[in-house]
Amino acid sequence: MTGPAVVALGGGHGLAASLEALKLVCDDITAVVTVADNGGSSGRLRDEFEILPPGDLRMALTALCDDTEWGHTWRDVLQHRFRGEGPLGGHALGNLLIAALWDLHHDPVAGLDLVGRLLNARGRVLPMAAVPLEITAQIAGTDPGDPERVDTVRGQVAVASTRGQVRSIALEPADPPSAPDTIDAVREADWVILGPGSWFTSVMPHLMVPALRDALHDTSAKRLLTLNLEHSGETAGFSCARQVDALADHAPRLRLDVVLADPGAVDDEAQLREAAARLGAEVVVAAIAQRGAPGHHDSLRLAAAYRDIFG
Amino acid sequence: MTGPAVVALGGGHGLAASLEALKLVCDDITAVVTVADNGGSSGRLRDEFEILPPGDLRMALTALCDDTEWGHTWRDVLQHRFRGEGPLGGHALGNLLIAALWDLHHDPVAGLDLVGRLLNARGRVLPMAAVPLEITAQIAGTDPGDPERVDTVRGQVAVASTRGQVRSIALEPADPPSAPDTIDAVREADWVILGPGSWFTSVMPHLMVPALRDALHDTSAKRLLTLNLEHSGETAGFSCARQVDALADHAPRLRLDVVLADPGAVDDEAQLREAAARLGAEVVVAAIAQRGAPGHHDSLRLAAAYRDIFG
Repeated sequence: MTGPAVVALGGGHGLAASLEALKLVCDDITAVVTVADNGGSSGRLRDEFEILPPGDLRMALTALCDDTEWGHTWRDVLQHRFRGEGPLGGHALGNLLIAALWDLHHDPVAGLDLVGRLLNARGRVLPMAAVPLEITAQIAGTDPGDPERVDTVRGQVAVASTRGQVRSIALEPADPPSAPDTIDAVREADWVILGPGSWFTSVMPHLMVPALRDALHDTSAKRLLTLNLEHSGETAGFSCARQVDALADHAPRLRLDVVLADPGAVDDEAQLREAAARLGAEVVVAAIAQRGAPGHHDSLRLAAAYRDIFG
Repeated sequence: MTGPAVVALGGGHGLAASLEALKLVCDDITAVVTVADNGGSSGRLRDEFEILPPGDLRMALTALCDDTEWGHTWRDVLQHRFRGEGPLGGHALGNLLIAALWDLHHDPVAGLDLVGRLLNARGRVLPMAAVPLEITAQIAGTDPGDPERVDTVRGQVAVASTRGQVRSIALEPADPPSAPDTIDAVREADWVILGPGSWFTSVMPHLMVPALRDALHDTSAKRLLTLNLEHSGETAGFSCARQVDALADHAPRLRLDVVLADPGAVDDEAQLREAAARLGAEVVVAAIAQRGAPGHHDSLRLAAAYRDIFG
């Protein structure tokens, strides 16, 4: 297998689905992962050790595991969560491993590379910034009695679970240092892929890191945006076109080549094509949803769509 | 390298020193490790998950690591302790890994074997019993005003740190189930090695597990006892002969072939030879101490002594 050099940007389950597809069709994969999570095991580790939140990085690494008995064994171990409500309850073992490696090695990328070697991972996993970040969002409609009111909400957990409408997001710090390998990977890629994933908290944060946004603007890579299958939580009620517009609002200079959507998720195809065209992109409609698991991308169908788009 | 099949019984730093020596002179090594620790990271994990205390098992595994960059890297990761006083502070990463594996696999030996594969370990590490144990000890002299009084002290930490004199130890439960592989390894060995290590809490507990004691009695293997270099804590003031006698008191049917001692640690050689002879053993006096690190065995010198004894 050869295939293009691909950089996939995102976080959480959406990025993992993309990586599981990519490892079926190309050899040179880099995941660039959000580091703004403040919930669950990751949030507790941020609080205890002031480190990057490891959870989304762990999930990307395990998605890239070698598909052998060894790779699957260690994937399952790293994904395992301790039971109960005690001091360890809810922690994923892989998060603890990454935290220990960061304590030993200091360079976060060296630690992630070692976990990649353990999993014989089919690509690299890099953080989108070298320091932990906080997401803030301007959110309307949190108060049903005052629909005009806009609140500033802090933290990924609060933003992702809002019942209001996210107008915009920002990061603190606003201009974080980035990992040099991350920027180089974007600049040297053949394709960069944004989405799928939680739109405001996993897909768009990358565009708010100035050095990374500049690299996304300047790279000679083609740019692919994979849309979500369902809209709930932070994008409840969003059309496909509005997903594209929200991205453009946060990164006005961003150009895209392809917007990929599942036929079952496309509400108004003409409107979507107009929104995509404003960013320079054509729309590819292809069956990429998993049957029987609403909202989840199917890794084999997504792999087929990626392969066809890469040409 | 070939060499005999060796089973080393013990716990903590003493067993680790023995294993580091053994991996230099033989290929077929099994460590049989105490599971009565109730302190530190291991004690906290016992409390949180009701599992075998993993710490001594982890230390034995890391002592057997392959001497390559990969083996040393993972040894250092598994030995790493989290800093601080938070929920993870003081936990060794390897203890958490073993606990996660036991949650996933149930069979404790399968989890230990997987850690061994990670380290490319030069042997197997097995628990001395299949359930966590508690040490109790009869201890005299804890009350300076009443030298005849004997107290029952519970728990490895309390026993190991006593200021009194340990008269005897026992285990709870008194007849624990053993791991079948452990018994088989002892029965099939060419040599079994007891000590060095904390005498009452790491070396002698094995003799209090009936199935393991029977295997040690019945095996056709030769039996080697390696004495400690210093006597502090639970054996403060002990002569070499008294170390041997304490063992015989707890396992009257035990026969030995060789008692190994460092010349700097032998107080009364004639008395030691008499005590050893009562168990059927000859005494080998050989330089096995580490220079500049009082109380620590030197792995190269210990390896040389083992090789010479094995013939």
